[in-house]
Amino acid sequence: MTLIDAMTSIDAQRLLGRIRELGGIGRDGEGRLVRLAASDADRLGRDRFVGWLREAGLEIAIDRMGNIFGVWQAPANAGHAPILVGSHIDTVIDAGIYDGCYGVLAGLEVIETLKASALVPSRPLAVAAFTNEEGVRYSPDMMGSLVHAGGVGIDEALAAVGTDGSVLGEELARIGYAGDEEPGFLKPHVYLELHIEQGPVLEREGVPIGAVENLQGISWQRITIDGVANHAGTTPMSMRNDAGHAAARVVTFLHDRAKASNTPTVATVGTMRFEPNAINVIPSRAVFTVDLRDPFEHRLQAEEAALAAFLENLAADGGVAISVERLARFEPVIFDISIVELIEAAAKKRGYASKRMTSGAGHDAQMMARLAPAAMIFVPSAGGISHNPREHTADAELVAGANILLDIVAQLADQEVSGDG
Amino acid sequence: MTLIDAMTSIDAQRLLGRIRELGGIGRDGEGRLVRLAASDADRLGRDRFVGWLREAGLEIAIDRMGNIFGVWQAPANAGHAPILVGSHIDTVIDAGIYDGCYGVLAGLEVIETLKASALVPSRPLAVAAFTNEEGVRYSPDMMGSLVHAGGVGIDEALAAVGTDGSVLGEELARIGYAGDEEPGFLKPHVYLELHIEQGPVLEREGVPIGAVENLQGISWQRITIDGVANHAGTTPMSMRNDAGHAAARVVTFLHDRAKASNTPTVATVGTMRFEPNAINVIPSRAVFTVDLRDPFEHRLQAEEAALAAFLENLAADGGVAISVERLARFEPVIFDISIVELIEAAAKKRGYASKRMTSGAGHDAQMMARLAPAAMIFVPSAGGISHNPREHTADAELVAGANILLDIVAQLADQEVSGDG
Repeated sequence: MTLIDAMTSIDAQRLLGRIRELGGIGRDGEGRLVRLAASDADRLGRDRFVGWLREAGLEIAIDRMGNIFGVWQAPANAGHAPILVGSHIDTVIDAGIYDGCYGVLAGLEVIETLKASALVPSRPLAVAAFTNEEGVRYSPDMMGSLVHAGGVGIDEALAAVGTDGSVLGEELARIGYAGDEEPGFLKPHVYLELHIEQGPVLEREGVPIGAVENLQGISWQRITIDGVANHAGTTPMSMRNDAGHAAARVVTFLHDRAKASNTPTVATVGTMRFEPNAINVIPSRAVFTVDLRDPFEHRLQAEEAALAAFLENLAADGGVAISVERLARFEPVIFDISIVELIEAAAKKRGYASKRMTSGAGHDAQMMARLAPAAMIFVPSAGGISHNPREHTADAELVAGANILLDIVAQLADQEVSGDG
Repeated sequence: MTLIDAMTSIDAQRLLGRIRELGGIGRDGEGRLVRLAASDADRLGRDRFVGWLREAGLEIAIDRMGNIFGVWQAPANAGHAPILVGSHIDTVIDAGIYDGCYGVLAGLEVIETLKASALVPSRPLAVAAFTNEEGVRYSPDMMGSLVHAGGVGIDEALAAVGTDGSVLGEELARIGYAGDEEPGFLKPHVYLELHIEQGPVLEREGVPIGAVENLQGISWQRITIDGVANHAGTTPMSMRNDAGHAAARVVTFLHDRAKASNTPTVATVGTMRFEPNAINVIPSRAVFTVDLRDPFEHRLQAEEAALAAFLENLAADGGVAISVERLARFEPVIFDISIVELIEAAAKKRGYASKRMTSGAGHDAQMMARLAPAAMIFVPSAGGISHNPREHTADAELVAGANILLDIVAQLADQEVSGDG
């Protein structure tokens, strides 16, 4: 009997109970969930997670980046590259309880379930909680998995200075999570991440399982437009160099272009500031950010080029000076098609509809995809809301997602090991 | 010989010297000119002005509003309604030296010049410095002339609470300028105001004298657009309720409509605020102000109606809720055509080009026009700049404007008195 034939299921009450218990740890004076990376609240959450790893009988490893790993290794599979399930347990300010934590605790749940089945997988199974995925206290986000994948050096990462002036390396040492392992010490055979969608698509379409086949590339820019401040009453329209109007033209250009594109391209201007910001003064300056995303690099580059061309014309046409600062840029990630197909098949077997989709948000999986075949499973987010106390996924949906993860891990762990030693 | 035939001229050095001297009074620690209404700095400016009135041999009257009047009255014209020239000597923060002060000091200069000519005008001549024209410390602006014209009661005005928590009536008493006269005690025969343009038109066209035939109506509104905050990466364009994009559509609508209108309509969005104002969050709220101006009430109303209709469609179309708050509304003012023609004729006689124009900014003249025939004379503002230390008008242009004012006052003072007692 293979593991997958057993159609075992995870312990729903244990998983849901842990999600709620972890969600109660790190509440501030106003009752808000705030477990910023390497903070005292983060330590409390980490301690609880490590306690559960220990109770589950997993080997615990912590690297210098503070990434936590729980590994189930049997003599029969020792030394083989593990199947790694992961996500993060740090949170934003005033967070919901699911983002990240769900994937980490479901990973633990899957390993415990398989461990209890007394069957020995062909590879070690491991769960990871990566440090500072949210990037609220320290930049960049997804830092722990980025360092694990070799995208940034450990010393550079540990030297990161937080919004509160703290240094990440010092804070990790202070809270007792500056581990001994070198980042990247664990080379996974595959990486899986189960996550809430953080978007409205699954709920809107009534589909419980998202088989995430790719992850959008992200381009963040800050644009500064300089015009001339002048009296709003005495300056004819033809003599204006209105930085605010020029900024508005960029906002509508980006929005209308993305909306009309018939592609998944999304364009957002989330921040905007006028100077001098007075009711009767034509704005001399407008500063705003542009967030462009697309699953395909060539299309993301085309969007960036279209914006640059528009800005060039705007500067010539509107009598304004425009400067652009690149804030962040991640190329799109294509996940492993064979794992995506496993997700679809597992959903079908359990009787759930599934949908191939693109991750609009960044996740640790995009970093881990540099190291190993990777994919993600999404479950619905009510109203598409996340990073908010109203973040919600129904219990049945959480359980369904964890069972799909279980099935896939079981199936992968049932495959004969070859090649990777 | 009539006064006008004499082609006398004002004392240029005296006028320019006083403008510069007054401009040096009320400098703060950083050297900025800051004579906010009823402040200690304002007292210093008032004291100097009253000193000059006294030196010129004028009768000084101060009303309960703190408006200062200098009156030259002869036995032959006593009791007749005076020809009043006025403006203000309070300033904005970090002001230039011309706005308001030029008109007041030129009024004094004209009276002194005519008084020295030993010819007795048919009416008293008076100069006024109105309290709190700028409206920086106390709201509304143009307060002193508004009260003088009966637009707001004196008790209500004196109860105004400043941005610093002070009460205007108490501050006027403290600086010694809570006078005894009832506001409106002086009923002018005509009101004249000489002022810098505060706009770019005269300089751009190379015309030294503006014959101001009307003053734009002003409509100020604050618009709040409520959409839905959502993840910038995971929310498809078709599922967005983007308050920032909706606001940008309003900005471009207003600007493009005014620019294409072939009328003097001006539309400005000077302030803008997004919430939550995060790079990767679709704005849930945008709050901005709209400043609409037009010289004709029917057209200003049409602009307001067009905006309202656009907002209604936008709310339906863009899935946003829109609320509008009226902040200020002044109807346009039509100045007295016979005085405007006098300005043109006087300019022509002195060899200056003149141009009929609209005042885009608010001035005390718009309040005084409720009481008496009124008009304004503009001189060029370099670069259209005002409310700024770079505010500048060339000496020759200042002198030219004052001589035109002289000619008009002389001509009006040469007319036989009839009707008004």
